Amino acid sequence: MEKEREALQTWKERIAKELDSVVAFWLKHSHDREHGGFFTCLGRNGQVYDDLKYVWLQGRQVWMYCRLYRNFERFRRPEILDAAKAGGEFLLRFARVAPPAKKCAFVLTRDGRPMKVQRTIFSECFYTIGMNELWRVTKDARYQNEAVEMMDQIIRWVREDPAGLGRPQLSGAPASESMAVPMMLMNLMDQLSEEDEAMTKKYAELSDWCAQRILKHVQRDGKAVLENISDDGKELPGCLGRHQNPGHAIEAGWFMLQYARKKGDTKLRAQVIDKFLLLPFRSGWDTEHGGLLYFQDVDGFCPTQLEWDMKLWWPHSEAMISFLMGYSDSGDPALLQIFKQVAEYTFKHFHDPEYGEWFGYLTREGKVALTIKGGPFKGCFHVPRSLAMCEQLLGALLQRGSAPAGSK
Amino acid sequence: MEKEREALQTWKERIAKELDSVVAFWLKHSHDREHGGFFTCLGRNGQVYDDLKYVWLQGRQVWMYCRLYRNFERFRRPEILDAAKAGGEFLLRFARVAPPAKKCAFVLTRDGRPMKVQRTIFSECFYTIGMNELWRVTKDARYQNEAVEMMDQIIRWVREDPAGLGRPQLSGAPASESMAVPMMLMNLMDQLSEEDEAMTKKYAELSDWCAQRILKHVQRDGKAVLENISDDGKELPGCLGRHQNPGHAIEAGWFMLQYARKKGDTKLRAQVIDKFLLLPFRSGWDTEHGGLLYFQDVDGFCPTQLEWDMKLWWPHSEAMISFLMGYSDSGDPALLQIFKQVAEYTFKHFHDPEYGEWFGYLTREGKVALTIKGGPFKGCFHVPRSLAMCEQLLGALLQRGSAPAGSK
Repeated sequence: MEKEREALQTWKERIAKELDSVVAFWLKHSHDREHGGFFTCLGRNGQVYDDLKYVWLQGRQVWMYCRLYRNFERFRRPEILDAAKAGGEFLLRFARVAPPAKKCAFVLTRDGRPMKVQRTIFSECFYTIGMNELWRVTKDARYQNEAVEMMDQIIRWVREDPAGLGRPQLSGAPASESMAVPMMLMNLMDQLSEEDEAMTKKYAELSDWCAQRILKHVQRDGKAVLENISDDGKELPGCLGRHQNPGHAIEAGWFMLQYARKKGDTKLRAQVIDKFLLLPFRSGWDTEHGGLLYFQDVDGFCPTQLEWDMKLWWPHSEAMISFLMGYSDSGDPALLQIFKQVAEYTFKHFHDPEYGEWFGYLTREGKVALTIKGGPFKGCFHVPRSLAMCEQLLGALLQRGSAPAGSK
Repeated sequence: MEKEREALQTWKERIAKELDSVVAFWLKHSHDREHGGFFTCLGRNGQVYDDLKYVWLQGRQVWMYCRLYRNFERFRRPEILDAAKAGGEFLLRFARVAPPAKKCAFVLTRDGRPMKVQRTIFSECFYTIGMNELWRVTKDARYQNEAVEMMDQIIRWVREDPAGLGRPQLSGAPASESMAVPMMLMNLMDQLSEEDEAMTKKYAELSDWCAQRILKHVQRDGKAVLENISDDGKELPGCLGRHQNPGHAIEAGWFMLQYARKKGDTKLRAQVIDKFLLLPFRSGWDTEHGGLLYFQDVDGFCPTQLEWDMKLWWPHSEAMISFLMGYSDSGDPALLQIFKQVAEYTFKHFHDPEYGEWFGYLTREGKVALTIKGGPFKGCFHVPRSLAMCEQLLGALLQRGSAPAGSK
């Protein structure tokens, strides 16, 4: 399998080089040296076209910088740590709308005044992962206290009382669950539990609960992953119930692969590969033009979202992680083949050889629809996270010799 | 100008035929005979793919049916009036979330339970026009009372105290005005004041205020219409301030042409044609593929909305009205030429010869992106309103002989 090793090596080099270029883009263009935090509304060449600060993206960039600093020798640089700290301090000072209450803004002005608040948990989740990772590299207890307290609040909102989120209770709104919620909680627990026995123990029950909730989204006798289900695990009526987001299901796949690995559950691993990797890939991959469709309706109706057939950067970033991790964990060469298929499409269409970073939004045919490199929802997160994780996965595969650990 | 008359006659016949076909589509597919109200989530062939009831679209369809019943001999049919009444009764019973408070839901279940509430005035506005028009055809005072009381509430929300809308006051949110608000109020006043001297008098000051507010959206020394401005009439920073919606500006154009006509103000008419018809048409018309772009950034940055370069049905419906009305009022043949250009594009790309009604969402290149005929935002409104108004405008033009009234 020397040829296979060579292919893995080539991908590792290509991905490492791309990660360098992507990180350089954010280092060069995104730092607000006056107020701290990051500009994420960046045009094709990195020009700042808006100075608003989206809390999701602030928290994510703090997390990304710290994770790179912690895990990659070549990124252990003061400028990365300093920018992460400045981002963390900006969030500590401004993210919460009415401290000491925990609710965070969705978007702040450049100098930290709240502009909009979402009635969901996600700003708070990305705040939490940023704070915890910042604690891991600085050991400053203020950051960890914030992370732990916010995590407790998020769990209360999800499992006890959502009233603090500000959503009205309406008699016609079905008691429903978006798969994003247990996914996000699982991601948070992974973050907070890393090499932390007390946290691992604290979240053991919740972790199992999240895994069970995610598995409930496999519906229709195992033939489809549905994005929204009822609180009691059934399909919901109408478009809401039929809604599918293949990239999101595939992202859930690598969260669940990590869970199965921790549990040492190979049966679950096989189930996850089947239902969360292969099933959404087969339904979501556009056989005519390549790339993953953004949204689908499980009964084949036309989705009502205008962007349903566009190709977005993040489902492709997530699919690269999932299929490489699936291959790494199972040894199934079909998964490596799909990794290569997705990565080839991605490098060909999203990568910008001229200015660096990736385009975020392509038409169905693969043409760049928006030239922005960052915006209200795209920041320094999915692309470098995917590249960093793939580089590590490829490195581990190459190190352990010809056959992956879990090889069949 | 016999050739010109022939062209107008041909368009009138084409449009009248299309209106018949569009109305037939909604009559056949959209009536909920069990609960009253209308299904608007209709697939290409009219199949109901979701049974939710969006209050914007319920109110609009009641209005449209009554308007057709009142103004067109051939639509004065019991089935149209009965469906409008059943829609009105459904709204009376279910639209308000917590009666007697006035706030209406954004979307209801099929049997009328509230699912979502928007923190804006628009559900209430479409409720109001539906109720007023239903009163005009039935003379049932309950409907008019609802319309008048709701209108008073809307005005209080806009001009006195928005607290009842439920939007939090945030220190970083700029005091801004979307052009939709004065446009919508102007549209409501037109509706309530028709052949009603008391109402005309009641709203005289507000009507002038709305016109002045709309004119304030002409910024950059008269070179651009901006969708959002500050409360004191200045450009806002960032994407929000630079945002342009050419179809919306053109729609404001015909609202303002009606206002100028009522005032007998030909100077204002010329200004409206220049700033609200020609300026956004020139910036928004896609010279490569035809059709009006959905969103633009006044400085030429890439908009952050994924659908920015799509072609939507409603800007084209509105442009047909505006340019034909502009021609009718001014006699400028350049405006008739643009009407024809827009109408040709529209009939070629949006019209569905197979199943009737129009597609709503095309790619930049003019390919159908969503095959739905109705959904959460497209119902029985913009298409038949445009066709009905254009048929009337063309009829009046043909009747008054060779030269339009305001001919230069």
